[in-house]
Amino acid sequence: MIAEFKMNRRVNFAETDTAGVMHYSNYFRWMEEVEHAWFRSIGMSVVQPHALGTVSWPRITVSCEYFAPVRFEDVVEMHFELLTLSDKSMTYEVTFHKDGKKTARGRTKAVCCRTFDGGRFESIAIPPDIRAKMEKGAA
Amino acid sequence: MIAEFKMNRRVNFAETDTAGVMHYSNYFRWMEEVEHAWFRSIGMSVVQPHALGTVSWPRITVSCEYFAPVRFEDVVEMHFELLTLSDKSMTYEVTFHKDGKKTARGRTKAVCCRTFDGGRFESIAIPPDIRAKMEKGAA
Amino acid sequence: MIAEFKMNRRVNFAETDTAGVMHYSNYFRWMEEVEHAWFRSIGMSVVQPHALGTVSWPRITVSCEYFAPVRFEDVVEMHFELLTLSDKSMTYEVTFHKDGKKTARGRTKAVCCRTFDGGRFESIAIPPDIRAKMEKGAA
Amino acid sequence: MIAEFKMNRRVNFAETDTAGVMHYSNYFRWMEEVEHAWFRSIGMSVVQPHALGTVSWPRITVSCEYFAPVRFEDVVEMHFELLTLSDKSMTYEVTFHKDGKKTARGRTKAVCCRTFDGGRFESIAIPPDIRAKMEKGAA
Repeated sequence: MIAEFKMNRRVNFAETDTAGVMHYSNYFRWMEEVEHAWFRSIGMSVVQPHALGTVSWPRITVSCEYFAPVRFEDVVEMHFELLTLSDKSMTYEVTFHKDGKKTARGRTKAVCCRTFDGGRFESIAIPPDIRAKMEKGAA
Repeated sequence: MIAEFKMNRRVNFAETDTAGVMHYSNYFRWMEEVEHAWFRSIGMSVVQPHALGTVSWPRITVSCEYFAPVRFEDVVEMHFELLTLSDKSMTYEVTFHKDGKKTARGRTKAVCCRTFDGGRFESIAIPPDIRAKMEKGAA
Repeated sequence: MIAEFKMNRRVNFAETDTAGVMHYSNYFRWMEEVEHAWFRSIGMSVVQPHALGTVSWPRITVSCEYFAPVRFEDVVEMHFELLTLSDKSMTYEVTFHKDGKKTARGRTKAVCCRTFDGGRFESIAIPPDIRAKMEKGAA
Repeated sequence: MIAEFKMNRRVNFAETDTAGVMHYSNYFRWMEEVEHAWFRSIGMSVVQPHALGTVSWPRITVSCEYFAPVRFEDVVEMHFELLTLSDKSMTYEVTFHKDGKKTARGRTKAVCCRTFDGGRFESIAIPPDIRAKMEKGAA
Protein backbone atom coordinates (compact mmCIF):
# COMPACT_ATOMS: atom_id res chain seq x y z
CA MET A 1 0.00 0.00 0.00
CA ILE A 2 1.32 3.39 -1.04
CA ALA A 3 -1.11 5.74 0.68
CA GLU A 4 -4.34 5.70 2.65
CA PHE A 5 -7.11 8.05 3.66
CA LYS A 6 -10.34 7.78 5.65
CA MET A 7 -13.59 9.69 5.37
CA ASN A 8 -17.07 9.36 6.85
CA ARG A 9 -20.17 9.88 4.75
CA ARG A 10 -23.86 9.77 5.59
CA VAL A 11 -26.34 8.13 3.20
CA ASN A 12 -28.61 10.73 1.60
CA PHE A 13 -32.28 10.11 0.87
CA ALA A 14 -31.87 10.52 -2.89
CA GLU A 15 -29.16 7.83 -2.82
CA THR A 16 -31.57 5.15 -1.61
CA ASP A 17 -34.01 3.16 -3.76
CA THR A 18 -37.35 1.38 -3.46
CA ALA A 19 -35.57 -1.56 -1.81
CA GLY A 20 -34.85 0.77 1.12
CA VAL A 21 -31.07 0.63 0.68
CA MET A 22 -28.40 2.73 -1.00
CA HIS A 23 -28.48 2.04 -4.74
CA TYR A 24 -25.46 -0.04 -5.73
CA SER A 25 -24.34 2.43 -8.40
CA ASN A 26 -23.78 5.11 -5.77
CA TYR A 27 -20.86 3.23 -4.23
CA PHE A 28 -18.86 4.26 -7.30
CA ARG A 29 -19.71 7.91 -6.67
CA TRP A 30 -18.61 7.52 -3.06
CA MET A 31 -15.36 5.83 -4.10
CA GLU A 32 -14.65 8.78 -6.31
CA GLU A 33 -15.46 11.22 -3.51
CA VAL A 34 -12.92 9.67 -1.15
CA GLU A 35 -10.34 9.47 -3.97
CA HIS A 36 -10.80 13.16 -4.71
CA ALA A 37 -10.65 14.04 -1.00
CA TRP A 38 -7.36 12.12 -0.82
CA PHE A 39 -5.98 14.09 -3.78
CA ARG A 40 -6.89 17.30 -1.99
CA SER A 41 -5.27 16.02 1.22
CA ILE A 42 -1.92 15.80 -0.64
CA GLY A 43 -2.30 19.26 -2.13
CA MET A 44 -3.60 18.27 -5.55
CA SER A 45 -6.81 17.81 -7.51
CA VAL A 46 -7.88 14.82 -9.58
CA VAL A 47 -8.09 17.44 -12.33
CA GLN A 48 -4.66 18.98 -11.94
CA PRO A 49 -3.30 21.96 -13.92
CA HIS A 50 0.22 21.02 -15.02
CA ALA A 51 2.95 22.07 -17.44
CA LEU A 52 1.88 19.14 -19.65
CA GLY A 53 -1.75 20.28 -19.73
CA THR A 54 -4.61 19.32 -17.41
CA VAL A 55 -3.79 15.96 -15.86
CA SER A 56 -6.70 13.73 -14.91
CA TRP A 57 -7.49 10.05 -14.34
CA PRO A 58 -10.12 8.38 -16.56
CA ARG A 59 -11.25 4.98 -15.29
CA ILE A 60 -10.16 1.77 -17.04
CA THR A 61 -11.70 -0.90 -14.80
CA VAL A 62 -13.90 -0.59 -11.73
CA SER A 63 -15.57 -3.19 -9.54
CA CYS A 64 -17.44 -3.53 -6.29
CA GLU A 65 -18.48 -6.38 -4.00
CA TYR A 66 -21.43 -5.90 -1.66
CA PHE A 67 -21.60 -7.64 1.74
CA ALA A 68 -24.42 -5.83 3.54
CA PRO A 69 -26.76 -2.96 2.64
CA VAL A 70 -26.60 0.56 4.06
CA ARG A 71 -29.71 2.70 4.55
CA PHE A 72 -30.86 6.33 4.76
CA GLU A 73 -28.91 8.31 7.38
CA ASP A 74 -26.43 5.51 8.07
CA VAL A 75 -22.92 6.84 8.65
CA VAL A 76 -20.43 4.86 6.59
CA GLU A 77 -16.65 4.95 6.98
CA MET A 78 -14.72 4.77 3.73
CA HIS A 79 -11.13 3.57 3.85
CA PHE A 80 -9.17 4.50 0.69
CA GLU A 81 -5.93 2.64 -0.05
CA LEU A 82 -3.71 3.44 -3.02
CA LEU A 83 -2.45 -0.06 -3.87
CA THR A 84 -0.20 0.40 -6.89
CA LEU A 85 1.26 3.07 -9.15
CA SER A 86 2.43 1.73 -12.51
CA ASP A 87 4.09 3.89 -15.18
CA LYS A 88 0.76 5.15 -16.44
CA SER A 89 -1.94 4.11 -13.98
CA MET A 90 -3.01 3.86 -10.36
CA THR A 91 -5.08 1.18 -8.65
CA TYR A 92 -6.92 1.86 -5.44
CA GLU A 93 -9.32 0.04 -3.17
CA VAL A 94 -12.06 1.49 -0.98
CA THR A 95 -13.65 -0.50 1.82
CA PHE A 96 -16.94 0.59 3.34
CA HIS A 97 -17.66 0.00 7.03
CA LYS A 98 -20.74 0.49 9.17
CA ASP A 99 -20.66 -0.04 12.93
CA GLY A 100 -17.26 -1.71 12.56
CA LYS A 101 -18.48 -4.21 9.96
CA LYS A 102 -17.28 -4.23 6.34
CA THR A 103 -20.28 -3.67 4.07
CA ALA A 104 -18.62 -3.37 0.64
CA ARG A 105 -15.26 -3.28 -1.12
CA GLY A 106 -14.55 -1.52 -4.40
CA ARG A 107 -11.55 -1.22 -6.67
CA THR A 108 -10.63 1.26 -9.40
CA LYS A 109 -7.88 1.26 -12.00
CA ALA A 110 -7.45 4.71 -13.55
CA VAL A 111 -5.01 5.86 -16.19
CA CYS A 112 -3.08 9.10 -16.11
CA CYS A 113 -4.11 11.35 -19.00
CA ARG A 114 -3.70 14.84 -20.19
CA THR A 115 -6.88 16.37 -21.50
CA PHE A 116 -7.47 18.92 -24.22
CA ASP A 117 -10.29 21.38 -24.77
CA GLY A 118 -13.19 19.58 -26.37
CA GLY A 119 -12.77 16.60 -24.09
CA ARG A 120 -10.06 14.55 -25.84
CA PHE A 121 -7.75 12.49 -23.62
CA GLU A 122 -4.20 11.21 -24.14
CA SER A 123 -2.62 8.60 -21.87
CA ILE A 124 0.75 9.71 -20.47
CA ALA A 125 3.38 8.47 -18.04
CA ILE A 126 2.58 9.82 -14.57
CA PRO A 127 4.62 13.06 -14.36
CA PRO A 128 7.44 12.70 -11.75
CA ASP A 129 6.25 15.65 -9.63
CA ILE A 130 2.74 14.23 -9.41
CA ARG A 131 4.07 10.72 -8.67
CA ALA A 132 6.24 12.12 -5.88
CA LYS A 133 3.24 13.74 -4.19
CA MET A 134 1.15 10.60 -4.53
CA GLU A 135 3.91 8.45 -3.02
CA LYS A 136 4.52 10.92 -0.22
CA GLY A 137 0.80 10.59 0.54
CA ALA A 138 1.95 7.41 2.32
CA ALA A 139 3.64 9.29 5.12
CA MET B 1 -48.31 28.08 -26.83
CA ILE B 2 -45.58 28.14 -29.44
CA ALA B 3 -44.70 24.45 -29.76
CA GLU B 4 -45.44 21.12 -28.13
CA PHE B 5 -43.98 17.63 -27.93
CA LYS B 6 -44.89 14.39 -26.17
CA MET B 7 -42.71 11.57 -24.91
CA ASN B 8 -43.24 8.49 -22.77
CA ARG B 9 -40.72 7.47 -20.15
CA ARG B 10 -40.61 4.53 -17.76
CA VAL B 11 -39.46 5.03 -14.15
CA ASN B 12 -36.08 3.36 -13.55
CA PHE B 13 -35.19 1.61 -10.30
CA ALA B 14 -32.32 4.00 -9.51
CA GLU B 15 -34.76 6.94 -9.83
CA THR B 16 -36.89 5.74 -6.91
CA ASP B 17 -36.16 6.27 -3.21
CA THR B 18 -36.84 4.63 0.14
CA ALA B 19 -40.37 6.07 0.07
CA GLY B 20 -41.05 3.77 -2.89
CA VAL B 21 -41.65 6.63 -5.33
CA MET B 22 -39.64 8.54 -7.91
CA HIS B 23 -37.42 11.05 -6.11
CA TYR B 24 -38.77 14.55 -6.65
CA SER B 25 -35.45 15.87 -8.00
CA ASN B 26 -35.65 13.48 -10.96
CA TYR B 27 -38.64 15.31 -12.44
CA PHE B 28 -36.18 18.07 -13.39
CA ARG B 29 -34.01 15.55 -15.23
CA TRP B 30 -37.07 14.25 -17.05
CA MET B 31 -38.17 17.79 -17.97
CA GLU B 32 -34.78 18.33 -19.48
CA GLU B 33 -34.97 15.04 -21.37
CA VAL B 34 -38.22 15.97 -23.08
CA GLU B 35 -36.92 19.50 -23.79
CA HIS B 36 -33.82 18.06 -25.44
CA ALA B 37 -35.90 15.53 -27.40
CA TRP B 38 -38.04 18.43 -28.64
CA PHE B 39 -34.91 20.32 -29.77
CA ARG B 40 -33.84 17.22 -31.71
CA SER B 41 -37.33 16.91 -33.22
CA ILE B 42 -36.88 20.36 -34.81
CA GLY B 43 -33.42 19.52 -36.11
CA MET B 44 -31.37 21.17 -33.37
CA SER B 45 -29.60 20.41 -30.13
CA VAL B 46 -29.88 22.23 -26.82
CA VAL B 47 -26.12 22.64 -27.29
CA GLN B 48 -26.12 24.02 -30.81
CA PRO B 49 -23.02 24.86 -32.87
CA HIS B 50 -23.62 28.28 -34.43
CA ALA B 51 -21.78 31.12 -36.16
CA LEU B 52 -21.94 33.00 -32.82
CA GLY B 53 -20.33 30.11 -30.93
CA THR B 54 -22.01 27.24 -29.12
CA VAL B 55 -25.54 28.29 -28.21
CA SER B 56 -27.07 26.73 -25.10
CA TRP B 57 -29.76 27.45 -22.51
CA PRO B 58 -28.74 27.75 -18.85
CA ARG B 59 -31.67 27.70 -16.42
CA ILE B 60 -32.82 30.88 -14.64
CA THR B 61 -35.85 29.63 -12.72
CA VAL B 62 -37.35 26.16 -12.42
CA SER B 63 -40.28 24.83 -10.43
CA CYS B 64 -42.42 21.75 -10.05
CA GLU B 65 -45.74 20.91 -8.39
CA TYR B 66 -46.45 17.31 -7.40
CA PHE B 67 -50.00 15.88 -7.43
CA ALA B 68 -49.44 12.12 -7.16
CA PRO B 69 -46.37 9.88 -6.93
CA VAL B 70 -45.07 7.59 -9.67
CA ARG B 71 -43.31 4.30 -8.94
CA PHE B 72 -40.81 1.85 -10.39
CA GLU B 73 -41.75 0.70 -13.91
CA ASP B 74 -44.64 3.14 -14.22
CA VAL B 75 -44.93 4.56 -17.72
CA VAL B 76 -45.34 8.33 -17.57
CA GLU B 77 -46.37 10.58 -20.45
CA MET B 78 -44.59 13.92 -20.57
CA HIS B 79 -46.25 16.77 -22.43
CA PHE B 80 -43.82 19.58 -23.28
CA GLU B 81 -45.22 23.01 -24.19
CA LEU B 82 -43.06 25.96 -25.20
CA LEU B 83 -45.05 28.81 -23.68
CA THR B 84 -43.09 31.96 -24.50
CA LEU B 85 -40.01 33.14 -26.36
CA SER B 86 -38.77 36.53 -25.21
CA ASP B 87 -35.77 38.32 -26.74
CA LYS B 88 -33.31 36.33 -24.68
CA SER B 89 -35.18 33.49 -22.99
CA MET B 90 -37.69 30.68 -23.36
CA THR B 91 -40.26 29.42 -20.86
CA TYR B 92 -41.71 25.95 -21.11
CA GLU B 93 -44.01 23.74 -19.09
CA VAL B 94 -44.01 19.98 -18.80
CA THR B 95 -47.00 18.07 -17.46
CA PHE B 96 -46.64 14.47 -16.32
CA HIS B 97 -49.49 12.01 -16.75
CA LYS B 98 -50.03 8.43 -15.61
CA ASP B 99 -53.09 6.45 -16.67
CA GLY B 100 -54.66 9.66 -17.94
CA LYS B 101 -54.22 11.48 -14.64
CA LYS B 102 -51.92 14.49 -14.20
CA THR B 103 -49.27 13.63 -11.60
CA ALA B 104 -46.98 16.68 -11.76
CA ARG B 105 -46.40 19.97 -13.58
CA GLY B 106 -43.04 21.67 -13.99
CA ARG B 107 -41.88 24.93 -15.51
CA THR B 108 -38.48 26.13 -16.70
CA LYS B 109 -37.21 29.55 -17.75
CA ALA B 110 -33.90 29.28 -19.58
CA VAL B 111 -31.79 32.02 -21.09
CA CYS B 112 -30.09 31.88 -24.46
CA CYS B 113 -26.32 31.96 -24.08
CA ARG B 114 -23.22 31.46 -26.07
CA THR B 115 -20.61 29.46 -24.27
CA PHE B 116 -16.83 29.61 -24.44
CA ASP B 117 -14.17 27.02 -23.73
CA GLY B 118 -13.60 26.84 -20.01
CA GLY B 119 -17.30 27.01 -19.30
CA ARG B 120 -18.01 30.75 -19.39
CA PHE B 121 -21.47 31.85 -20.56
CA GLU B 122 -22.73 35.07 -22.12
CA SER B 123 -26.42 35.89 -22.46
CA ILE B 124 -27.40 36.81 -26.02
CA ALA B 125 -30.54 37.63 -27.99
CA ILE B 126 -31.93 34.41 -29.46
CA PRO B 127 -30.37 34.24 -32.96
CA PRO B 128 -33.05 34.69 -35.67
CA ASP B 129 -32.35 31.35 -37.37
CA ILE B 130 -32.69 29.48 -34.06
CA ARG B 131 -35.84 31.42 -33.17
CA ALA B 132 -37.35 30.58 -36.54
CA LYS B 133 -36.84 26.85 -35.99
CA MET B 134 -38.24 27.00 -32.47
CA GLU B 135 -41.34 28.85 -33.67
CA LYS B 136 -41.82 26.51 -36.59
CA GLY B 137 -41.76 23.70 -34.02
CA ALA B 138 -45.36 24.75 -33.49
CA ALA B 139 -46.56 23.44 -36.83
CA MET C 1 -38.46 32.82 10.15
CA ILE C 2 -38.98 29.94 12.55
CA ALA C 3 -35.61 28.18 12.42
CA GLU C 4 -32.33 28.25 10.52
CA PHE C 5 -29.34 26.03 9.89
CA LYS C 6 -26.12 26.31 7.90
CA MET C 7 -24.03 23.65 6.21
CA ASN C 8 -21.09 23.64 3.81
CA ARG C 9 -20.94 21.22 0.91
CA ARG C 10 -18.31 20.66 -1.76
CA VAL C 11 -19.34 20.03 -5.39
CA ASN C 12 -18.61 16.43 -6.41
CA PHE C 13 -17.39 15.49 -9.87
CA ALA C 14 -20.45 13.36 -10.64
CA GLU C 15 -22.66 16.37 -9.84
CA THR C 16 -21.22 18.43 -12.69
CA ASP C 17 -22.19 18.21 -16.36
CA THR C 18 -20.71 18.81 -19.80
CA ALA C 19 -21.22 22.56 -19.32
CA GLY C 20 -18.60 22.39 -16.56
CA VAL C 21 -21.03 23.40 -13.79
CA MET C 22 -23.17 21.64 -11.20
CA HIS C 23 -26.28 20.28 -12.91
CA TYR C 24 -29.28 22.36 -11.91
CA SER C 25 -31.28 19.33 -10.70
CA ASN C 26 -28.69 18.68 -7.99
CA TYR C 27 -29.61 21.86 -6.11
CA PHE C 28 -32.80 20.06 -5.07
CA ARG C 29 -30.76 17.16 -3.68
CA TRP C 30 -28.62 19.63 -1.77
CA MET C 31 -31.70 21.45 -0.42
CA GLU C 32 -32.94 18.14 0.87
CA GLU C 33 -29.56 17.36 2.44
CA VAL C 34 -29.53 20.56 4.48
CA GLU C 35 -33.21 20.08 5.43
CA HIS C 36 -32.45 16.56 6.69
CA ALA C 37 -29.35 17.78 8.53
CA TRP C 38 -31.53 20.41 10.23
CA PHE C 39 -34.03 17.73 11.29
CA ARG C 40 -31.16 15.75 12.81
CA SER C 41 -29.88 18.92 14.55
CA ILE C 42 -33.20 19.15 16.44
CA GLY C 43 -33.15 15.47 17.39
CA MET C 44 -35.44 14.16 14.65
CA SER C 45 -35.40 12.58 11.23
CA VAL C 46 -37.35 13.62 8.14
CA VAL C 47 -38.63 10.04 8.36
CA GLN C 48 -39.70 10.01 12.00
CA PRO C 49 -41.11 7.00 13.87
CA HIS C 50 -44.14 8.25 15.81
CA ALA C 51 -47.22 6.97 17.67
CA LEU C 52 -49.25 7.91 14.56
CA GLY C 53 -47.00 5.85 12.27
CA THR C 54 -43.96 6.97 10.32
CA VAL C 55 -44.18 10.73 9.79
CA SER C 56 -42.51 12.14 6.67
CA TRP C 57 -42.74 15.18 4.39
CA PRO C 58 -43.58 14.62 0.69
CA ARG C 59 -42.98 17.68 -1.48
CA ILE C 60 -45.90 19.71 -2.86
CA THR C 61 -44.11 22.55 -4.66
CA VAL C 62 -40.42 23.20 -5.17
CA SER C 63 -38.56 25.90 -7.06
CA CYS C 64 -35.09 27.27 -7.58
CA GLU C 65 -33.58 30.45 -9.04
CA TYR C 66 -30.01 30.37 -10.32
CA PHE C 67 -27.75 33.45 -10.16
CA ALA C 68 -24.27 32.04 -10.85
CA PRO C 69 -22.87 28.58 -11.54
CA VAL C 70 -20.78 26.49 -9.15
CA ARG C 71 -18.09 24.10 -10.34
CA PHE C 72 -16.21 20.94 -9.33
CA GLU C 73 -14.60 21.24 -5.88
CA ASP C 74 -16.23 24.59 -5.10
CA VAL C 75 -17.26 24.84 -1.46
CA VAL C 76 -20.82 26.15 -1.20
CA GLU C 77 -22.52 27.39 1.95
CA MET C 78 -26.17 26.46 2.27
CA HIS C 79 -28.36 28.57 4.53
CA PHE C 80 -31.62 26.80 5.45
CA GLU C 81 -34.52 28.88 6.80
CA LEU C 82 -37.82 27.39 7.92
CA LEU C 83 -40.20 30.15 6.85
CA THR C 84 -43.67 28.91 7.81
CA LEU C 85 -45.42 26.05 9.52
CA SER C 86 -49.10 25.76 8.64
CA ASP C 87 -51.44 23.15 10.10
CA LYS C 88 -50.28 20.51 7.67
CA SER C 89 -47.22 21.79 5.86
CA MET C 90 -43.87 23.52 6.14
CA THR C 91 -42.20 25.94 3.75
CA TYR C 92 -38.48 26.49 3.76
CA GLU C 93 -35.92 28.40 1.73
CA VAL C 94 -32.30 27.52 1.07
CA THR C 95 -29.82 30.07 -0.22
CA PHE C 96 -26.53 28.98 -1.74
CA HIS C 97 -23.40 31.11 -1.34
CA LYS C 98 -19.92 30.88 -2.78
CA ASP C 99 -17.16 33.25 -1.69
CA GLY C 100 -19.78 35.42 0.01
CA LYS C 101 -21.90 35.76 -3.12
CA LYS C 102 -25.41 34.31 -3.43
CA THR C 103 -25.43 31.79 -6.31
CA ALA C 104 -28.94 30.30 -6.02
CA ARG C 105 -32.11 30.35 -3.94
CA GLY C 106 -34.56 27.46 -3.62
CA ARG C 107 -37.87 26.97 -1.88
CA THR C 108 -39.78 23.85 -0.85
CA LYS C 109 -43.30 23.34 0.44
CA ALA C 110 -43.73 19.90 1.97
CA VAL C 111 -46.79 18.37 3.57
CA CYS C 112 -46.80 16.35 6.78
CA CYS C 113 -47.84 12.76 6.10
CA ARG C 114 -47.96 9.45 7.78
CA THR C 115 -46.83 6.62 5.60
CA PHE C 116 -47.89 3.00 5.49
CA ASP C 117 -46.10 -0.11 4.32
CA GLY C 118 -46.32 -0.34 0.56
CA GLY C 119 -45.64 3.34 0.15
CA ARG C 120 -49.09 4.91 0.67
CA PHE C 121 -49.19 8.40 2.23
CA GLU C 122 -51.89 10.23 4.19
CA SER C 123 -51.73 13.95 4.89
CA ILE C 124 -52.09 14.77 8.59
CA ALA C 125 -51.96 17.81 10.87
CA ILE C 126 -48.41 18.24 12.12
CA PRO C 127 -48.36 16.33 15.45
CA PRO C 128 -47.92 18.76 18.38
CA ASP C 129 -44.74 17.12 19.70
CA ILE C 130 -43.11 17.33 16.27
CA ARG C 131 -44.28 20.92 15.79
CA ALA C 132 -42.83 21.85 19.19
CA LYS C 133 -39.40 20.52 18.24
CA MET C 134 -39.49 22.27 14.87
CA GLU C 135 -40.41 25.58 16.48
CA LYS C 136 -37.81 25.19 19.19
CA GLY C 137 -35.30 24.75 16.36
CA ALA C 138 -35.50 28.54 16.24
CA ALA C 139 -33.67 28.98 19.51
CA MET D 1 -25.28 -17.89 -22.97
CA ILE D 2 -28.82 -18.45 -21.70
CA ALA D 3 -30.63 -15.37 -22.99
CA GLU D 4 -29.94 -12.06 -24.69
CA PHE D 5 -31.60 -8.73 -25.25
CA LYS D 6 -30.69 -5.48 -27.00
CA MET D 7 -31.71 -1.93 -26.28
CA ASN D 8 -30.66 1.52 -27.51
CA ARG D 9 -30.23 4.42 -25.14
CA ARG D 10 -29.28 8.04 -25.70
CA VAL D 11 -26.90 9.82 -23.29
CA ASN D 12 -28.74 12.47 -21.28
CA PHE D 13 -27.18 15.80 -20.34
CA ALA D 14 -27.38 15.12 -16.59
CA GLU D 15 -25.46 11.87 -17.14
CA THR D 16 -22.37 13.68 -18.42
CA ASP D 17 -19.67 15.34 -16.31
CA THR D 18 -17.16 18.17 -16.51
CA ALA D 19 -14.87 15.93 -18.59
CA GLY D 20 -17.53 16.07 -21.32
CA VAL D 21 -18.30 12.35 -21.19
CA MET D 22 -20.85 10.09 -19.51
CA HIS D 23 -19.86 9.64 -15.86
CA TYR D 24 -18.54 6.13 -15.33
CA SER D 25 -20.99 5.37 -12.51
CA ASN D 26 -23.92 5.73 -14.90
CA TYR D 27 -22.94 2.61 -16.85
CA PHE D 28 -24.19 0.63 -13.85
CA ARG D 29 -27.57 2.38 -14.05
CA TRP D 30 -27.73 1.60 -17.74
CA MET D 31 -26.82 -2.06 -17.13
CA GLU D 32 -29.68 -2.27 -14.70
CA GLU D 33 -32.05 -0.62 -17.18
CA VAL D 34 -31.36 -3.21 -19.88
CA GLU D 35 -31.58 -6.03 -17.29
CA HIS D 36 -34.99 -4.78 -16.15
CA ALA D 37 -36.15 -4.35 -19.75
CA TRP D 38 -35.13 -7.98 -20.38
CA PHE D 39 -37.13 -9.13 -17.35
CA ARG D 40 -40.16 -7.29 -18.75
CA SER D 41 -39.57 -8.84 -22.20
CA ILE D 42 -40.05 -12.31 -20.64
CA GLY D 43 -43.18 -11.26 -18.78
CA MET D 44 -41.62 -10.59 -15.39
CA SER D 45 -40.23 -7.81 -13.24
CA VAL D 46 -36.91 -7.69 -11.40
CA VAL D 47 -39.19 -7.13 -8.39
CA GLN D 48 -41.57 -10.05 -8.90
CA PRO D 49 -44.61 -10.83 -6.75
CA HIS D 50 -44.52 -14.57 -6.02
CA ALA D 51 -46.04 -17.21 -3.71
CA LEU D 52 -42.77 -17.09 -1.72
CA GLY D 53 -42.96 -13.31 -1.27
CA THR D 54 -41.50 -10.55 -3.44
CA VAL D 55 -38.56 -12.00 -5.37
CA SER D 56 -35.76 -9.61 -6.30
CA TRP D 57 -32.06 -9.67 -7.17
CA PRO D 58 -29.61 -7.75 -4.94
CA ARG D 59 -26.15 -7.34 -6.45
CA ILE D 60 -23.18 -9.34 -5.12
CA THR D 61 -20.39 -8.28 -7.48
CA VAL D 62 -20.38 -5.77 -10.32
CA SER D 63 -17.63 -4.56 -12.61
CA CYS D 64 -17.09 -2.50 -15.74
CA GLU D 65 -14.26 -1.97 -18.21
CA TYR D 66 -14.17 1.23 -20.25
CA PHE D 67 -12.71 1.32 -23.78
CA ALA D 68 -13.92 4.67 -25.16
CA PRO D 69 -16.05 7.51 -23.81
CA VAL D 70 -19.60 8.36 -24.88
CA ARG D 71 -20.93 11.90 -24.91
CA PHE D 72 -24.18 13.90 -24.69
CA GLU D 73 -26.79 12.75 -27.24
CA ASP D 74 -24.73 9.75 -28.38
CA VAL D 75 -26.92 6.74 -29.09
CA VAL D 76 -25.46 3.66 -27.45
CA GLU D 77 -26.51 0.06 -28.11
CA MET D 78 -26.55 -2.15 -25.06
CA HIS D 79 -26.29 -5.91 -25.57
CA PHE D 80 -27.43 -7.88 -22.50
CA GLU D 81 -26.38 -11.53 -22.19
CA LEU D 82 -27.47 -13.78 -19.33
CA LEU D 83 -24.34 -15.91 -18.94
CA THR D 84 -25.11 -18.30 -16.07
CA LEU D 85 -27.87 -19.26 -13.67
CA SER D 86 -26.64 -21.07 -10.57
CA ASP D 87 -28.92 -22.40 -7.84
CA LYS D 88 -29.21 -19.01 -6.22
CA SER D 89 -27.72 -16.42 -8.54
CA MET D 90 -27.48 -15.08 -12.07
CA THR D 91 -24.51 -13.55 -13.87
CA TYR D 92 -24.96 -11.30 -16.87
CA GLU D 93 -22.78 -9.18 -19.11
CA VAL D 94 -23.69 -5.98 -20.91
CA THR D 95 -21.59 -4.65 -23.78
CA PHE D 96 -21.95 -1.05 -24.91
CA HIS D 97 -21.49 -0.13 -28.58
CA LYS D 98 -21.36 3.17 -30.41
CA ASP D 99 -21.15 3.35 -34.20
CA GLY D 100 -20.35 -0.37 -34.27
CA LYS D 101 -17.44 -0.04 -31.84
CA LYS D 102 -17.43 -1.57 -28.35
CA THR D 103 -17.06 1.23 -25.80
CA ALA D 104 -17.51 -0.65 -22.49
CA ARG D 105 -18.27 -4.04 -21.01
CA GLY D 106 -19.89 -4.63 -17.62
CA ARG D 107 -20.74 -7.70 -15.59
CA THR D 108 -23.15 -8.25 -12.70
CA LYS D 109 -23.66 -11.17 -10.33
CA ALA D 110 -26.96 -10.90 -8.48
CA VAL D 111 -28.46 -13.26 -5.94
CA CYS D 112 -32.10 -14.35 -5.85
CA CYS D 113 -33.78 -13.09 -2.67
CA ARG D 114 -37.18 -12.76 -1.19
CA THR D 115 -37.76 -9.47 0.49
CA PHE D 116 -39.90 -8.54 3.46
CA ASP D 117 -41.54 -5.27 4.46
CA GLY D 118 -38.96 -3.08 6.14
CA GLY D 119 -36.35 -3.98 3.55
CA ARG D 120 -34.90 -7.26 4.87
CA PHE D 121 -33.65 -9.76 2.28
CA GLU D 122 -33.25 -13.55 2.42
CA SER D 123 -31.29 -15.47 -0.21
CA ILE D 124 -33.30 -18.32 -1.76
CA ALA D 125 -32.92 -20.91 -4.50
CA ILE D 126 -34.29 -19.48 -7.74
CA PRO D 127 -37.95 -20.64 -7.79
CA PRO D 128 -38.52 -23.20 -10.63
CA ASP D 129 -41.23 -21.14 -12.36
CA ILE D 130 -39.00 -18.06 -12.43
CA ARG D 131 -36.00 -20.10 -13.62
CA ALA D 132 -38.12 -21.61 -16.41
CA LYS D 133 -39.07 -18.16 -17.72
CA MET D 134 -35.49 -16.90 -17.51
CA GLU D 135 -34.21 -19.94 -19.44
CA LYS D 136 -36.97 -19.66 -22.03
CA GLY D 137 -35.79 -16.09 -22.54
CA ALA D 138 -33.15 -17.77 -24.67
CA ALA D 139 -35.58 -18.70 -27.43
